[in-house]
Amino acid sequence: MKTVLVTAFEPFGGESVNPSWEAVKELDGCLIDGARVVARQLPCVFGGSLTTLYAQIDELCPELVFCVGQAGGRSDISVERVAINVNDARIPDNAGNQPIDTPVVEGGPAAYFATLPIKALTYGLREAGIPASVSQTAGTFVCNHVMYGLLNYLESTQNPARGGFIHIPYLPEQAANHPGAPSMGAEIVVAALERMIRLALHNPADQILGAGTTH
Amino acid sequence: MKTVLVTAFEPFGGESVNPSWEAVKELDGCLIDGARVVARQLPCVFGGSLTTLYAQIDELCPELVFCVGQAGGRSDISVERVAINVNDARIPDNAGNQPIDTPVVEGGPAAYFATLPIKALTYGLREAGIPASVSQTAGTFVCNHVMYGLLNYLESTQNPARGGFIHIPYLPEQAANHPGAPSMGAEIVVAALERMIRLALHNPADQILGAGTTH
Amino acid sequence: MKTVLVTAFEPFGGESVNPSWEAVKELDGCLIDGARVVARQLPCVFGGSLTTLYAQIDELCPELVFCVGQAGGRSDISVERVAINVNDARIPDNAGNQPIDTPVVEGGPAAYFATLPIKALTYGLREAGIPASVSQTAGTFVCNHVMYGLLNYLESTQNPARGGFIHIPYLPEQAANHPGAPSMGAEIVVAALERMIRLALHNPADQILGAGTTH
Amino acid sequence: MKTVLVTAFEPFGGESVNPSWEAVKELDGCLIDGARVVARQLPCVFGGSLTTLYAQIDELCPELVFCVGQAGGRSDISVERVAINVNDARIPDNAGNQPIDTPVVEGGPAAYFATLPIKALTYGLREAGIPASVSQTAGTFVCNHVMYGLLNYLESTQNPARGGFIHIPYLPEQAANHPGAPSMGAEIVVAALERMIRLALHNPADQILGAGTTH
Repeated sequence: MKTVLVTAFEPFGGESVNPSWEAVKELDGCLIDGARVVARQLPCVFGGSLTTLYAQIDELCPELVFCVGQAGGRSDISVERVAINVNDARIPDNAGNQPIDTPVVEGGPAAYFATLPIKALTYGLREAGIPASVSQTAGTFVCNHVMYGLLNYLESTQNPARGGFIHIPYLPEQAANHPGAPSMGAEIVVAALERMIRLALHNPADQILGAGTTH
Repeated sequence: MKTVLVTAFEPFGGESVNPSWEAVKELDGCLIDGARVVARQLPCVFGGSLTTLYAQIDELCPELVFCVGQAGGRSDISVERVAINVNDARIPDNAGNQPIDTPVVEGGPAAYFATLPIKALTYGLREAGIPASVSQTAGTFVCNHVMYGLLNYLESTQNPARGGFIHIPYLPEQAANHPGAPSMGAEIVVAALERMIRLALHNPADQILGAGTTH
Repeated sequence: MKTVLVTAFEPFGGESVNPSWEAVKELDGCLIDGARVVARQLPCVFGGSLTTLYAQIDELCPELVFCVGQAGGRSDISVERVAINVNDARIPDNAGNQPIDTPVVEGGPAAYFATLPIKALTYGLREAGIPASVSQTAGTFVCNHVMYGLLNYLESTQNPARGGFIHIPYLPEQAANHPGAPSMGAEIVVAALERMIRLALHNPADQILGAGTTH
Repeated sequence: MKTVLVTAFEPFGGESVNPSWEAVKELDGCLIDGARVVARQLPCVFGGSLTTLYAQIDELCPELVFCVGQAGGRSDISVERVAINVNDARIPDNAGNQPIDTPVVEGGPAAYFATLPIKALTYGLREAGIPASVSQTAGTFVCNHVMYGLLNYLESTQNPARGGFIHIPYLPEQAANHPGAPSMGAEIVVAALERMIRLALHNPADQILGAGTTH
């Protein structure tokens, strides 16, 4: 049976929950089009998050890897296009690390593109009535770090699994403490993740659909 | 038995649904703390919306009137503080009217403050984990028109009912067509409205809580 | 000779300059279409700002009064439409006062509309290549307080002078400390003020031009 | 004598001016710390912009290359960190091309980091009172295309020149037609470019200063 690994993060930045884990944990053990979903949590820590992720990949041999993280302030499901080989932490991680301008992987390429079908996912969510867009930057914190590490690990181990990163908004109960911030209910995020897994299983290659920005 | 009138609008501006009606209709006939909720739809039309609203008030003799409308682009439940005596329509209403700088009520005062306990509602929603804020402007379109007309009618008919206006975000299925726009699931809006009705019934006067802006 | 009183504020909220004074002081003593401009500074203090303003009006007998203030975070020259009879301070003023939900003028009307030709000013600035818009709220801090007090004083003293309030962005040197915040150079603000004075002198009544918002 | 090549674009997207050229042309022929500045315009065209740029580099043998472009909607001078190997055009370029998900350079690496000292530039501008920030994405239109092409060309020709891309806001006269959009006067952009050239000449390596984002 095919396995789909979906990771989420522990809370960080003073929050008591992380919306990624609140959504992802609901999918643990689900069967989606014949594939088994395994949900796992990663520490919000430079380095440690990748050690954990690599061990999960080795253990589970997934066909697909979706890493999911919180993007407080964003409005919709954002499907990341690219991860860059830099850590530049605006705030400390959960272990107190705050690297500035260090590489994720010493000697690695400048960037990796997601190997998930990002346009098919984005347009497929919109068709289902779920707000979504392609994002051209995953930032420079632990989310970008995990996305870069994931894609570097799959490539360097010649693992044919496809992978990428999904950013999600605050939960409503978090946004209640950040006046003006957008939010998305966990049940919508769960539906989005389930649909994206299905779309990725059915779209081995991506579709050519516009999702660019002029700057 | 006490009655609470909750109004919503028909779709406008090219949308096929109006989130206010999708939420408000779910409350029709509910009993909340011994009060009966009546949900009614208003046309998105200058003048016509008020004719309909006044007839509903005369028919139902409500103790509370919540008028609810769509604020595409806003992130949270926004509780309006004030309505102003001006129509300045950026787009035509559903009857093709586009008044500019006409009064809502000829000879009326410049503005009315909501007589709902706006701070108690806002803080009460946040305590329940629902994103909310006080808004200092309801705009200059049909929403402001209805809020002004409501408060003018209650005052001029010496009706002791309390009333005000609540703006809500797009539904997720609407935001899916407006990339980048925030949204809120209908079930959260329904929970918010139910809670606000309860809070208004229990807070005949407002609480003194900060919700201002420097500009 | 006609007099135009233009007021600005001292710095507040931790800033070392106030862009309103940096621009307004440049106009002091100018002759614009035969009218003499007098620039004055107001303290950023509830109550005290109005005492000072009323004394300046009594002393100068201006034909026009433009009160100008900083709106950190706004992008353009914003011409305020309305002031409301409420103080709701998000931060303390420069004397440490932080009133919440008190009236500007006890027993005053809910609001006053600017008596400047706000549409003529806004469209006239745009024609001159200066970004401008009508704002539907002046907030609930000292700026709104001054605008409300000004219009109430002119009305209650049967003073035929016309008046209103203009919000301006941060200066570039302020925005350099607020990453992401928009700014406007002082020389553009000075040109905007000069043009607005001219437009107000030439437009005793306003033009009917759309500048509304749906919410 | 050292040469600094500064490029800008022709107008695009329905604008009648491009702020990048309005600023950059002012620097043509200037001497900055002993280096001669040459200003050149690029067509806003996929492919053609790079043909022109490569010819300019071959002709001028510059030590530094600053490519500058318009970012309508951004508030400050944004110093781009990275360019990615993808064209995904939201609108057609000036020759009517609208590539979607094609590479800038077939077979090129996923991305290049700017070789300008982006942190020294950003912090140096702020110290001079000019709003600036590091941007993690140059978009997927002609600006990113030119930045990627530039860095690929310098690397593949073993040219030791350093280069990068700077995005700038609308001019005020453009923003006057886009209500709500931020702007920056041309003279501030000129001062920013002059200062950045000086900073780049004096900082062969970058400084380690935080300018990251969590997402």
